Parts: sequence; C-alpha cells; structure tokens
Amino acid sequence: MKTAPAVILSTILFVSLSAQAMPMANSGDRFGNQVKNTNITAEEVRSAQEAWGKALIQISKDFEKGGSKKATATANAVLDAAYGYAEGPVLFKPTLTTGEQTFRTSKEGALAYFVGGNKKFSKDSGFALKGWEKFDYRNAAVYINGDMAMTMGNVILTDKKGNVTTVDKTWGFKKGDDGKVRIVLHHSSLPYNP
Amino acid sequence: MKTAPAVILSTILFVSLSAQAMPMANSGDRFGNQVKNTNITAEEVRSAQEAWGKALIQISKDFEKGGSKKATATANAVLDAAYGYAEGPVLFKPTLTTGEQTFRTSKEGALAYFVGGNKKFSKDSGFALKGWEKFDYRNAAVYINGDMAMTMGNVILTDKKGNVTTVDKTWGFKKGDDGKVRIVLHHSSLPYNP
Amino acid sequence: MKTAPAVILSTILFVSLSAQAMPMANSGDRFGNQVKNTNITAEEVRSAQEAWGKALIQISKDFEKGGSKKATATANAVLDAAYGYAEGPVLFKPTLTTGEQTFRTSKEGALAYFVGGNKKFSKDSGFALKGWEKFDYRNAAVYINGDMAMTMGNVILTDKKGNVTTVDKTWGFKKGDDGKVRIVLHHSSLPYNP
Amino acid sequence: MKTAPAVILSTILFVSLSAQAMPMANSGDRFGNQVKNTNITAEEVRSAQEAWGKALIQISKDFEKGGSKKATATANAVLDAAYGYAEGPVLFKPTLTTGEQTFRTSKEGALAYFVGGNKKFSKDSGFALKGWEKFDYRNAAVYINGDMAMTMGNVILTDKKGNVTTVDKTWGFKKGDDGKVRIVLHHSSLPYNP
Repeated sequence: MKTAPAVILSTILFVSLSAQAMPMANSGDRFGNQVKNTNITAEEVRSAQEAWGKALIQISKDFEKGGSKKATATANAVLDAAYGYAEGPVLFKPTLTTGEQTFRTSKEGALAYFVGGNKKFSKDSGFALKGWEKFDYRNAAVYINGDMAMTMGNVILTDKKGNVTTVDKTWGFKKGDDGKVRIVLHHSSLPYNP
Repeated sequence: MKTAPAVILSTILFVSLSAQAMPMANSGDRFGNQVKNTNITAEEVRSAQEAWGKALIQISKDFEKGGSKKATATANAVLDAAYGYAEGPVLFKPTLTTGEQTFRTSKEGALAYFVGGNKKFSKDSGFALKGWEKFDYRNAAVYINGDMAMTMGNVILTDKKGNVTTVDKTWGFKKGDDGKVRIVLHHSSLPYNP
Repeated sequence: MKTAPAVILSTILFVSLSAQAMPMANSGDRFGNQVKNTNITAEEVRSAQEAWGKALIQISKDFEKGGSKKATATANAVLDAAYGYAEGPVLFKPTLTTGEQTFRTSKEGALAYFVGGNKKFSKDSGFALKGWEKFDYRNAAVYINGDMAMTMGNVILTDKKGNVTTVDKTWGFKKGDDGKVRIVLHHSSLPYNP
Repeated sequence: MKTAPAVILSTILFVSLSAQAMPMANSGDRFGNQVKNTNITAEEVRSAQEAWGKALIQISKDFEKGGSKKATATANAVLDAAYGYAEGPVLFKPTLTTGEQTFRTSKEGALAYFVGGNKKFSKDSGFALKGWEKFDYRNAAVYINGDMAMTMGNVILTDKKGNVTTVDKTWGFKKGDDGKVRIVLHHSSLPYNP
C-alpha cells in the first residue's frame, strides 16, 4: 500500500506539540534561552495611540496655564519623544493644512501646526491649543509588520465647550533600537462631507 | 604615547574600502554568491504607484466601452492584483466615503467604492467610473522599511472634460513572497477647505 | 518657577496607562479592530525547532520500515514543508559535509545530505538514516526580527543504540505570507575538539 | 466578445513602464520626494564582512606592536563598533570554543575569545593574537531581509608564517537606527574532517 508522506508530515510539522508528546518541552530554556525581540506589539501600538491623545490634551492644558511659551515647550518635547523627525522625514499630513504646506515632513512644520506662532507657516493657528479635554479612538484595522505598525480609524476629540471633532486618521508607528515607539506616518483628514 | 584604538578602529571599520586596500575585492562572488533579497525597492514603489493610476484609467475606459459589467470585472482584477485583501484586512479610507462605511477593510467594500452597484453600499456611485483620463502624482516623502514602503503626497486626476481633482494620499505597499507589490494601506482625502 | 516639560512628558508618553486614567480603554476595539500581524513569535520558533526534530526521527523510522524509497519520499516532503528552497537559496551548512560540497544551497543538495543515494554527492551516506530515536535542543539565545527568527544552541540526538550526538546549531526561520515557518538558514557543526 | 480583464490588467500592473507610456515619469520627484530607507544593502554587507577581516588583522598587528594591553583595547573597540552586544545577546559560536563556554552571548565572552586573558574563560588563548596577516572570504549565499542580512560561506585566514586556516562561517548583520551595521549572529566552525 502506498503511503502519502507529504500528508503525514504536514500533520507532524508545525503543529502545537502536546507536553506528553514532547517530554523535553521547555528544554529550550536551558542555557538561559535569552530572547531578543525587535518587533512591535499590539500593546505598544495601543499605548502609543493613547499617549498621543494624552499629549494633545497636555499641550492644551499647558497653553491655558502657561500660554504659548509653555505650550510650545511641551509640544516640542512631544514631537521629540513621539515622532521620528530625528531620523528623517516623517510622512505627516495634519487635518487642517493646505496647498504647498499640506505635508509637514520636517519637525518645524509639525511644531507650527500644533502650536502656531511660526511666520513661515502663517496659516497655522495651533491645532493643539484649541482647549482639548478628551481623546478617544476607534481602530478600523491594525497592520503589524516587523518593527512597524499601521493603524486606521477614527479619532474623536472633545473640547472644553463639549464640541466634538471626529477625524479619519492613519498612523504609522516604528519601534526604535531603544525600544521606544515613534510616529513616522500620520495622515489625518476631516470626514468627507458630500 | 597612548593610542586611541577606538578612533583608529572607527576609521577602519565600516568604511568603503578601496580596491587597492582590498586585493580580494569581489572575492565574495566565488561559490556563486547567490543573493536572496526580500526588500522592496524605490523602483518597485514608483511602479506600483504608476500601476494604480493606469488601472484607474483602465476601469474608466472599460466602463465607457463595456458598461458596468466590464468595469466591474476589471476593477475586480485590479483589486486582486494590486491590493492585499487575500491576506487580511486592508487599511483603506477612500476619498469620498462617510459614516459607518468610511473604512473599506474588505474587498467587497473596496469594489463597491470603485464601481458602485452594491446595495450594501448604497452611497457609492463608482469613483473609478468618472471618466478619468490622466493620472499624476507627487510624493512628499517615501518611507521604506523591509518589505513595506509608505508614500505620502498628492495624486492628481484629470477627467475627459479636463476637470482636475487633487487628493492627499497615503499608500502602504507590501512586497509578497511572490515578489509582487500590493497595497495594504490607502488613505485618500480631499484637501482641507478652510 | 520653571517647568521641565520634557520630563513631564516622558512620564506621560509611552507608559502603560491604568484603566482608571483611561476611561475609554478598550475603545480601540470598536469597528472590529481587525489586526493583521506578519511577525514570527517565540512560540512559532519553538514549534518549528521541535518539528525539525520530529521530522528527522520520522525519516529514520520510515527508512527502517520502508527502506530508502520511503525515507526519501518523507525527506522530500520535509524539505518542501520545512525549508525555504522553493523561494531561493537556503543557507545550509550540514554537520558532515566537506570541500566544494560543504554548502547545500539547493534542495537537491539538502536531500542528498539527509538520505544519500545521489551520485553527484557521493560522500553523502544519509544523515537522517542513522536510526535517530530522540531529539532534544537547548537554545543559547534567540533573536526575533520581523518575520525572521534566529536560534543558536545545541541539538542533542540519540540513536536506537543509545549513542548521543551533540551538535552546535544555528537556525534562521522565516514566516511566509501563508503563515508557515520555514528554515532559510541552517549551520550545524560538531563541537570543537582541541 | 468577452474580454479577459485579469489578463489585460496583469500586463498593465507591475510592469516597468516606459518613459513614452508615462509622460509624467519622474513627476514623483516633485515636492522633494524625500526617501527614508532603513534596509540593509548588499554593499553594506560586503563592507561589514571586509571590515571584520581588517579588524582581526589589526588586533594581531596591535598585539605585536603593543602587546596584550594594546590588542585588548583594540578588540574592545571592535566589539563595540562591529557587534550588537550593547542591545542584547549576540548569537556567537566562535571557531574554537567548547563545552559550557561554547556560546559567547555576552561581550565579555567574546572579548575573552579574541584576546584571552580572562580567568573565567581559562581555555581561551586569544584567537585574534595568532599573527593574522590576510583575510579572504567566499559567500555561498546571502539572505537579505529588512534591516538584517545573513551570509554563509568560507573565511580564509593566513598568518605571518603563511599557514592558512579556512572556516565555515555564518554571519547575521543588523543595520541600526544610526545606519551602522553590526553583527548579531556569528557561527564559525572548522571544516568537518571525516
């Protein structure tokens, strides 16, 4: 009788082996089994999304307490910590930019968008200064690939008057050699209004 | 006299070595030096962007020649060849979608957007059927990371009447095991109108 | 008094936020939150290592039961399922190969090593035919990077007479678009004997 | 007559488009077209391989000129610049190590192997101190995947007496956020001697 080794093997290979079948289970841990893993996790993505919201609200609060100077200092720190401008261009299309200044691939352009006050970007009034008090988000889907993750969905912002702004938002996050997650892609747009 | 080996080494290591300094240059080719490279290239990104534009125009032309049926068949083939729906959700925010149907993470939703005719997506009138004749694009920046690349910039579409539509567009392309490049992320939005 | 926003932010950003602090926790799940993840996991690496051992023992058993023909069929199926030869050269240095035939970058060379019987590789006696009955392994360290993982450590093989062979082994595993894990790198060597 | 859109499209999509067919060719460069690419290249792999050989010879020369102290300082600098120990365990199996100390996943163990003089590694006599004068290499195959590349092949070392040592060597190189290439995997073994 003929055997079908491919079929047999496919059941042997790549199946989760039970402890009974593998008496040496966990034996892989001997010698210490040190594991280095450079990949980004879904947990890290979620944390980075929530940190973005927290940071936006913090800039708004600092603007109220300390004015433009304090808000700018905070926004500057946020950009350094949460965006990848130190390593090259960031693919950033903010919600309310237009024309030649639509894309903010440099940190200067991003800072201008968040807190205004830069003559080179005279149309920027400071998106982060608008009294934001609450942040929420809903991911339509998340794509994780190596040290990068992309999210797409809605971000819902509420200001101190209770006005709600919903945007369609795509983020690309990259985990660095230092284990920190930074935004390298950010496309935000107002919902289409037919 | 003390030497500073770290400095000396930094000039030795990781510099492009001249042919004179390395008489065995090219010796790495012996044994055949077969190279397998899974990474996506800037060339492949450009080709994929241009292929997207070509495909959109093709759907428009097929609609004129063969009506909805022909356009739908073409759009279906485009989605299979150029998008990653076969392997999971695609992060797709088309230009003109709204509300609960803003994000089209399934192929059905993407097809409805391009050619309409699906009762589940009753607001879709078929973006690809609008008589597109010319496609152009301008990348603000490109980010290449392993088998993925992201682009952000403008796409400029012209229809047969000469009307020009410019959109802000982000794409994420992934190169598969088969060497083909597919869209796994696509965020398109009309320019902000203050 | 001066504030230090960078410090403040560093405590805000990238920290695991408590449920209390984030009332919208889990809100990211709305819209379905479909997650596509191409990365290889430590679990998958362990399973692939254990599957390799199982497969080697299976070839030995099949050789006893069905002779060279059966063993060859099984080895062929193992190579197709567990190695990446279908997509290009595999970096394979088996334990007992020498000279011009040390590296087996093609499937034919790998099959010859495991089961012999190929005149082009006349020194190969069939490593997998040596009556292997038990497999164990100990990872010294594991490196996970995207869809690839590398392991280094000892593999301990016992034959039916109770003879134990220990080898120093490095594996490189790659997870394919189909979610399956395949060996693309395999360097095995006998321990150095001073 | 029925058309076969899938076939038509497959010729449209993903083909290298001629300049004639695409009058807007190169238009993707407008807006600056800044490209960030984190991937490792074949050139960088070759440079890193040659830098390793240069560094080994340098340690040998420094040992002759400045004795153990100078060689150790150089080896220390080489390990910092060329290996990834700063970011975690390196998968390193040197040519001449045995038993419990076969794998040198820490920098201390690697340094001991290259220059000896560490009581914890009493069998190490200093591999880099053996009067190496010439380095050559032959890759059997190279595998490039994202920011990592693996090479397998022979390294051929010649000492000042003209003695030649050939080893079977596998390297795994990783390109860091700083653009520098470091060894994270290194398996070296003497050829099998039947």
